Amino acid sequence: MSLTKIWGENRAVLNGWLAIPDGFASEIMAHQGWDSLTVDLQHGVVDYGAAVRMLTAISTTDVVPIVRVPWVDPGIIMKSLDAGALGVICPMINSVEDAKVFANAMRYAPQGGRSYGPIRAGFVYGADYAKRANDLVTGFAMIETKRAVGVLDDILAVPGIDAVYIGPNDLALTLGMAPQFDPTHPTMMEAIEHILARAKHHNKRAAIHTGSAGYAKMMVGKGFDLVTVGSDSRFIAQGAAEAVAAFRATT
Amino acid sequence: MSLTKIWGENRAVLNGWLAIPDGFASEIMAHQGWDSLTVDLQHGVVDYGAAVRMLTAISTTDVVPIVRVPWVDPGIIMKSLDAGALGVICPMINSVEDAKVFANAMRYAPQGGRSYGPIRAGFVYGADYAKRANDLVTGFAMIETKRAVGVLDDILAVPGIDAVYIGPNDLALTLGMAPQFDPTHPTMMEAIEHILARAKHHNKRAAIHTGSAGYAKMMVGKGFDLVTVGSDSRFIAQGAAEAVAAFRATT
Amino acid sequence: MSLTKIWGENRAVLNGWLAIPDGFASEIMAHQGWDSLTVDLQHGVVDYGAAVRMLTAISTTDVVPIVRVPWVDPGIIMKSLDAGALGVICPMINSVEDAKVFANAMRYAPQGGRSYGPIRAGFVYGADYAKRANDLVTGFAMIETKRAVGVLDDILAVPGIDAVYIGPNDLALTLGMAPQFDPTHPTMMEAIEHILARAKHHNKRAAIHTGSAGYAKMMVGKGFDLVTVGSDSRFIAQGAAEAVAAFRATT
Amino acid sequence: MSLTKIWGENRAVLNGWLAIPDGFASEIMAHQGWDSLTVDLQHGVVDYGAAVRMLTAISTTDVVPIVRVPWVDPGIIMKSLDAGALGVICPMINSVEDAKVFANAMRYAPQGGRSYGPIRAGFVYGADYAKRANDLVTGFAMIETKRAVGVLDDILAVPGIDAVYIGPNDLALTLGMAPQFDPTHPTMMEAIEHILARAKHHNKRAAIHTGSAGYAKMMVGKGFDLVTVGSDSRFIAQGAAEAVAAFRATT
Amino acid sequence: MSLTKIWGENRAVLNGWLAIPDGFASEIMAHQGWDSLTVDLQHGVVDYGAAVRMLTAISTTDVVPIVRVPWVDPGIIMKSLDAGALGVICPMINSVEDAKVFANAMRYAPQGGRSYGPIRAGFVYGADYAKRANDLVTGFAMIETKRAVGVLDDILAVPGIDAVYIGPNDLALTLGMAPQFDPTHPTMMEAIEHILARAKHHNKRAAIHTGSAGYAKMMVGKGFDLVTVGSDSRFIAQGAAEAVAAFRATT
Amino acid sequence: MSLTKIWGENRAVLNGWLAIPDGFASEIMAHQGWDSLTVDLQHGVVDYGAAVRMLTAISTTDVVPIVRVPWVDPGIIMKSLDAGALGVICPMINSVEDAKVFANAMRYAPQGGRSYGPIRAGFVYGADYAKRANDLVTGFAMIETKRAVGVLDDILAVPGIDAVYIGPNDLALTLGMAPQFDPTHPTMMEAIEHILARAKHHNKRAAIHTGSAGYAKMMVGKGFDLVTVGSDSRFIAQGAAEAVAAFRATT
Repeated sequence: MSLTKIWGENRAVLNGWLAIPDGFASEIMAHQGWDSLTVDLQHGVVDYGAAVRMLTAISTTDVVPIVRVPWVDPGIIMKSLDAGALGVICPMINSVEDAKVFANAMRYAPQGGRSYGPIRAGFVYGADYAKRANDLVTGFAMIETKRAVGVLDDILAVPGIDAVYIGPNDLALTLGMAPQFDPTHPTMMEAIEHILARAKHHNKRAAIHTGSAGYAKMMVGKGFDLVTVGSDSRFIAQGAAEAVAAFRATT
Repeated sequence: MSLTKIWGENRAVLNGWLAIPDGFASEIMAHQGWDSLTVDLQHGVVDYGAAVRMLTAISTTDVVPIVRVPWVDPGIIMKSLDAGALGVICPMINSVEDAKVFANAMRYAPQGGRSYGPIRAGFVYGADYAKRANDLVTGFAMIETKRAVGVLDDILAVPGIDAVYIGPNDLALTLGMAPQFDPTHPTMMEAIEHILARAKHHNKRAAIHTGSAGYAKMMVGKGFDLVTVGSDSRFIAQGAAEAVAAFRATT
Repeated sequence: MSLTKIWGENRAVLNGWLAIPDGFASEIMAHQGWDSLTVDLQHGVVDYGAAVRMLTAISTTDVVPIVRVPWVDPGIIMKSLDAGALGVICPMINSVEDAKVFANAMRYAPQGGRSYGPIRAGFVYGADYAKRANDLVTGFAMIETKRAVGVLDDILAVPGIDAVYIGPNDLALTLGMAPQFDPTHPTMMEAIEHILARAKHHNKRAAIHTGSAGYAKMMVGKGFDLVTVGSDSRFIAQGAAEAVAAFRATT
Repeated sequence: MSLTKIWGENRAVLNGWLAIPDGFASEIMAHQGWDSLTVDLQHGVVDYGAAVRMLTAISTTDVVPIVRVPWVDPGIIMKSLDAGALGVICPMINSVEDAKVFANAMRYAPQGGRSYGPIRAGFVYGADYAKRANDLVTGFAMIETKRAVGVLDDILAVPGIDAVYIGPNDLALTLGMAPQFDPTHPTMMEAIEHILARAKHHNKRAAIHTGSAGYAKMMVGKGFDLVTVGSDSRFIAQGAAEAVAAFRATT
Repeated sequence: MSLTKIWGENRAVLNGWLAIPDGFASEIMAHQGWDSLTVDLQHGVVDYGAAVRMLTAISTTDVVPIVRVPWVDPGIIMKSLDAGALGVICPMINSVEDAKVFANAMRYAPQGGRSYGPIRAGFVYGADYAKRANDLVTGFAMIETKRAVGVLDDILAVPGIDAVYIGPNDLALTLGMAPQFDPTHPTMMEAIEHILARAKHHNKRAAIHTGSAGYAKMMVGKGFDLVTVGSDSRFIAQGAAEAVAAFRATT
Repeated sequence: MSLTKIWGENRAVLNGWLAIPDGFASEIMAHQGWDSLTVDLQHGVVDYGAAVRMLTAISTTDVVPIVRVPWVDPGIIMKSLDAGALGVICPMINSVEDAKVFANAMRYAPQGGRSYGPIRAGFVYGADYAKRANDLVTGFAMIETKRAVGVLDDILAVPGIDAVYIGPNDLALTLGMAPQFDPTHPTMMEAIEHILARAKHHNKRAAIHTGSAGYAKMMVGKGFDLVTVGSDSRFIAQGAAEAVAAFRATT
């Protein structure tokens, strides 16, 4: 399964989030019906070694593996692809230069400068992976600052930027508001819809991080192609807090 | 904080369960209001190395650390205590002989045969830990088979068995029923109440594994001193399944 | 896929061996065409934590996962099954008592005393795993000492011993010969054929450790149901030694 | 506890150093009376995964956790903060550009460009961590080359550079001398006092790496706000070497 | 290097102790001049996976690797030998039965029942390791309880018990005294000298755990063949405590 | 042993490759007769934590340890050297600027800007390591793109670039051909011989990645100073595939 294939079916991708650096936690998530799962190397408590174990756990199912890298760094972008990520989400794409570095790392020559050596990907996706890789992978540029919005059309014009991924928390911060999930403030809605519209105009996919299934569905209704709902660490915190509260309620 | 201290306040202990072998998952759990958390070395995906990281994470809070060992084995019982467990739950105590081996491993001479060397416990609980250890720790004998129920009074008569811990799944299996959480079948209720009554008769604490806050409260109402509700792995599975279902509902 | 299913197709199982404690090494092995792979917790450099990562890697394919445990110890046998092993090979079954302890740990009541809690197996094989588990798993008793051969029929008569697994190295040692792979000495051949014949007489499966595809095929010809050929660590050592020798040859 | 709070008490911070990538080693250190402990991701044998385990161990006490990152890289600076570091020491700040990249990564908008997602910090320091974070954290720019000294005032003028941290070894190297702990050579003393004076002039904190309690106290006497003395790896090497020497002395 | 070889030079072995589960900590220790180093799987924060990394670190030098196992368990004793331990210290040998199980696990047939498969030992000590192994390894039975002292001659008469290892802490506990390093109480001295004398009478080696080079030298003077002084965890604790105290002294 | 010393003997270096993140796999490789082994942090499934364990395993033998870093990043280059690498292979040196950053990170002042703190190297190579380090280490610039070939003489003119390392796969890709091991196409041969000739002209060493001992020998014949043949992951895949094929052949 791949993102391209799901989109080919005219469906939005339901993406889950992985912040716990453990293969078993990822494997549990992979059995719950998500279309894709994202290993978060940026804000998750995850590094490359853990990511490999998590990607392996995801590969026990048909869920599409995505990695969010910590920064615009060709080394870790390529390592994530070699380890089997079919999508890469890159934070803080704030300039055309950022976008070019990211796009260049995502694809083999002549489209880009990805270095050859798809060690785990070659085993998982087959001996012809390298030939298909440029078509198979998706690069998501995170648009999450006022500065990025200011040069959005230029970023979107960079070949190899396949999609935008909106991070509402950072976007809110740089717009002078408190970090927030599922924002409804007009300023935020306007920014979100603007990014979505420009992405569509450039024929790029659009994705957004949300905090609930309801908001996610609303975003799909607006035209988003991928929505993220929840994470392993949040499910633990919420489930436990609710169980404790229910027990404490009357005892 | 210790189990003894909580019981001294005439409260039942609310215990959470840890099956994911990761310190960060445990640390999240430790911030949700549990009285104690149990690192499950038996059915959890956890070994000693992971247990140490999980116990360390629990020690960042006041939550009481408990370990369930995989089997009646003095080596791992003592290693768990040395690593800082204040309670040990031992599965499948099916005979007086099992009970004696377990009890012997829990305490220093002259009460038992625990070997001296409380390496992490000494740092965590202070230089006088060893002197206080025999009073500080609690040994839970799992009563979870028909065979164990048959010799229950003899098991309870073993000095150093401080408490029983009922495992309803295995108890159901050996009573010829399907494994089940939160059983209400008369045969099961009778067995549970019998074990509770005999424990109280012998002046021992009683604990039980449950699947919901509601059932747990009912058990506290009956007189149980510690109830387990939920686990990190279940919270992930349930939270994710619910989020996916909510999203799929209308889309 | 399961051993039972392969045997239902009247084929011998080709088993590979895993001694390197790393999921990626296991994943490479899992893509080479083996019917099953055995995680070796006895002589491999592998403990339970590594085994979970290796079993996860195997689960990315249809290869059947087997675990060889370090010793006749119910704790690790049950942990291996809970982690998803469909077969368990237990070393040094030298007495009926050993055989009973092993068999008891392999199956749920009423056939045995396996404790309920199939944490990873439940996710991998489905919610009905526990119901099917007693039929799904295979227990291999290693017959590898003169002493075991002396009580072979009694061991084979123990319900729940599903198969024998011959370890030629230890068998040779206890018969007063040097440890050897692929033995052809009449004493060894006689012992091997005797064990095979008695297993078949008791309607049990027979398996053997070999050092080459040729010997393995010969053993299948004799009637063995599972043959092990090679291991990840040997493939590295042999491949590297050959490459170095080829380079050094003329330079 | 935080560095700011200690300084608010008009005390110098006594900092220990962690080079061994193990949580238990860090936990031992955390119980010895240090004000703060620094996880060394640069020259220590430590990566991010180990750092998380070490920071967790520190959080079992009131010791302030600091991280030295390997290089001026926003990805790892932000990951360290998200993991709970309250101070970050950044090596080789040799230019205003370096200083700006570092300072920008340390704080949320509008003061900087730190990305939002304080996953572990949020659990450890509370739900309001993000609001307080810009005040809570301290960024130490390592001044350790001749080149840095040459542009020192410009570096110190960068908002968000909260403190300097002197690395005497590298400073000595770039001044044409041998690397040395606790230097007393006039050239070194002059450089150290110059850096201290300029930091104070800019109203910034000053810190220095030392090799002994005596030298550290001397530096506090000069006005340094944080002094580092010793490391886990050195304590092992020195303690062992002394024990062996004492034993070999007469035997 | 091996213990046998050192003893052949008529020297006592100076042994260091490893409780921190990290290869780098062990490697530092291995460069300080010890004759041997013991990986402590009993009271150390160490499991098998860590032990392999620690034994590998020791193998970068000529120091002799020893393992203390957690309990009289053939599985872990054999795994330790396969991983390259040349000595095994087994705790709590309190009966002839314990001694026989231990001794049996230490050597290949016909002297014992060690299972063949010296995976790491074969690479480290050469292809002929298995032939030499029975002569190369040393089994230390810990004599550390009153009960053991009561059957000491019977334990010492078990072939394959090569040496005794006195644990003063546990011995003190079972003799009704506080756990103590470097005991001088007449009751303890008498017990120690008795064990030493009986070992020598049976032509076995004698070893003892000490807390200082001075006491260790005294024990060598009495005739002990191996003395343990200090551990990595203690060197950290002591070194750090002294540095902090020195700093706090006048500041 | 060091690369410089081998070259001083007028021999080419036979280098093996490590892509499996496990110390035991590396230790097996280290016993097969290679002159050097390269830990691949770029395309191997390896991060810094694994690299330390692998370098430790290599240090149990006389094999020279090399690290290929993921990208031109001073942080990981210096961490690799501190961890004991005597050679560093840096991918994608495509400009003089890349070459300068790489060269600067490899050596201490005054030749470069390597930061002082050779933590593991100091234990492994001795207290005088830092003094000898600039002479001891070798920096290999990977020349693997058309762009790099275009500025080859400028790259080779950078002091501190000690050698070139040809990556035929990426070179082929950027020359418009399929990635390939052991290329014989005239375009590739011309490029390879050109790079070799220019390196020799600048008095630099030349190295190349090959897929077979035969091709490697041919390259040594042409004048290459280091040739890489095979990797741990390939040896597993090939050995296993051959064993399976041999077994399947007739059965």
